Amino acid sequence: MDRGEACAELLAAHFAAGRHLVVGLDPVVERIPDLVAPGAAPAERVVEFNRRIVEATAEVAAAYKPNSAFYEALGEAGFHALGATIGTIRERAPEAAVILDAKRADIGSTNAGYVAAAFDQLGADAVTVHPYLGGEALAPFLARAEKLVFVLARTSNPGAGELQDLAAGGLPLYRHVARAVAGDWNAAGNCGLVVGATYPEEMRAIREDVAAEMPILVPGVGAQGGDATAVVAANRAAGSDAFLIAASRSILYASAGEDFADAARAAAQALDAEIHAASV
Amino acid sequence: MDRGEACAELLAAHFAAGRHLVVGLDPVVERIPDLVAPGAAPAERVVEFNRRIVEATAEVAAAYKPNSAFYEALGEAGFHALGATIGTIRERAPEAAVILDAKRADIGSTNAGYVAAAFDQLGADAVTVHPYLGGEALAPFLARAEKLVFVLARTSNPGAGELQDLAAGGLPLYRHVARAVAGDWNAAGNCGLVVGATYPEEMRAIREDVAAEMPILVPGVGAQGGDATAVVAANRAAGSDAFLIAASRSILYASAGEDFADAARAAAQALDAEIHAASV
Repeated sequence: MDRGEACAELLAAHFAAGRHLVVGLDPVVERIPDLVAPGAAPAERVVEFNRRIVEATAEVAAAYKPNSAFYEALGEAGFHALGATIGTIRERAPEAAVILDAKRADIGSTNAGYVAAAFDQLGADAVTVHPYLGGEALAPFLARAEKLVFVLARTSNPGAGELQDLAAGGLPLYRHVARAVAGDWNAAGNCGLVVGATYPEEMRAIREDVAAEMPILVPGVGAQGGDATAVVAANRAAGSDAFLIAASRSILYASAGEDFADAARAAAQALDAEIHAASV
Repeated sequence: MDRGEACAELLAAHFAAGRHLVVGLDPVVERIPDLVAPGAAPAERVVEFNRRIVEATAEVAAAYKPNSAFYEALGEAGFHALGATIGTIRERAPEAAVILDAKRADIGSTNAGYVAAAFDQLGADAVTVHPYLGGEALAPFLARAEKLVFVLARTSNPGAGELQDLAAGGLPLYRHVARAVAGDWNAAGNCGLVVGATYPEEMRAIREDVAAEMPILVPGVGAQGGDATAVVAANRAAGSDAFLIAASRSILYASAGEDFADAARAAAQALDAEIHAASV
């Protein structure tokens, strides 16, 4: 399922065209509107719900980001639904990147298994990973030059600072991570960072640490309270257009009624418009 | 698939009986001996191989530790094989704990999905997690008092120190993690730590930071070069018997021939004997 084009180039084309929106496909069965595949098994309803969301948002989405946890929660059938969802994205939104939000990382020889799962079995273009084991352990991910590896630097959760703010040599841990990723880890030019929209100050600090062209994936807009305009401003101030702004719940569940797909489209368009307005 | 007994108590009973050995079930299809389910699909061969290993080692294993990456690498069928492997452990080694080595961690609302996958879908007794997002994010794991949550403190890989050795306030990051886990994170008494056997000095430092009864899971013995005797000594010096020593490749692939199960038993018994000898 390789695209024959490096993910970094695909994203750069989206950025140049002003496309920065990522739709997070984090389906919670209880929140899927009743009229979506009623009577079908939960995992089948998830795939059908995702199909409707992808069709509704394909015009504005630079990427889709299924989070593995929401699928794994459904067991074996959920794993199948994840693969089927990625197949649907390829079919209905062939220009969009697929970012598997799996937040993996193990020792090197074991990471080969996660690489096979994310890139070869599921065919994702990019994956999110934890930094804790260091760049040496991530070698199997980093060796895949045609893919993108988004390393967690500053996460969007309220308690992110507990460890990420620990200061070593005057620099907080999340900035050490950003600098390492932008340095040695990025030898193949296939690294990105994850920085939560809920931390605009930290976003600015990280842009000081990494080149303008390094992609930053920004979750936390919408339900988590992050502000897209502030994210764009922090990036534009550093002369960068290499940011991806992800929203999930605010798009997926914009309406609980039969108009859910139209409401999702409208929510995605509104966020896209906000990003555009802030980019000028 | 709950055991009706807290994992911490189950492990305490094993420690009291002098059982500390964990068999890592990390199957690589290419290394499974030819005579195991020849002609069957790879995922089926994995389940059969694991069954033979579990039967051969049940007498000495306090726990089994399947690493999710090796199963995910096989796609959907691999996910099924992981569930079937855990079912086999329950059947053939009912006293053993099942530690799902998945190294997960996301923001809180998303971790609920990983909790459902590990504990409810797969029925594991314990899981490994990354510390990077902080204790607040791990709340859905930490709320499961009957389970055990092993947090990565010092990993076994050669490059573990890149971030884990960064010193904040005179204390390296891995010790901050150990202290946080032993403090606030452990409100329900269901936390453990992961410390690689390849770092005996760091093991001693971590035992200074946490109470003797906190379980420490120790991978890295055998193929990775860690020394079981040094691990035991570091724990006994701190008056602790709450350690689990995990070996995978040195047991699973002790022989590539038709005697592989006997060789696995012998390797497990030899490691168990080494742990006993060092414990006295």
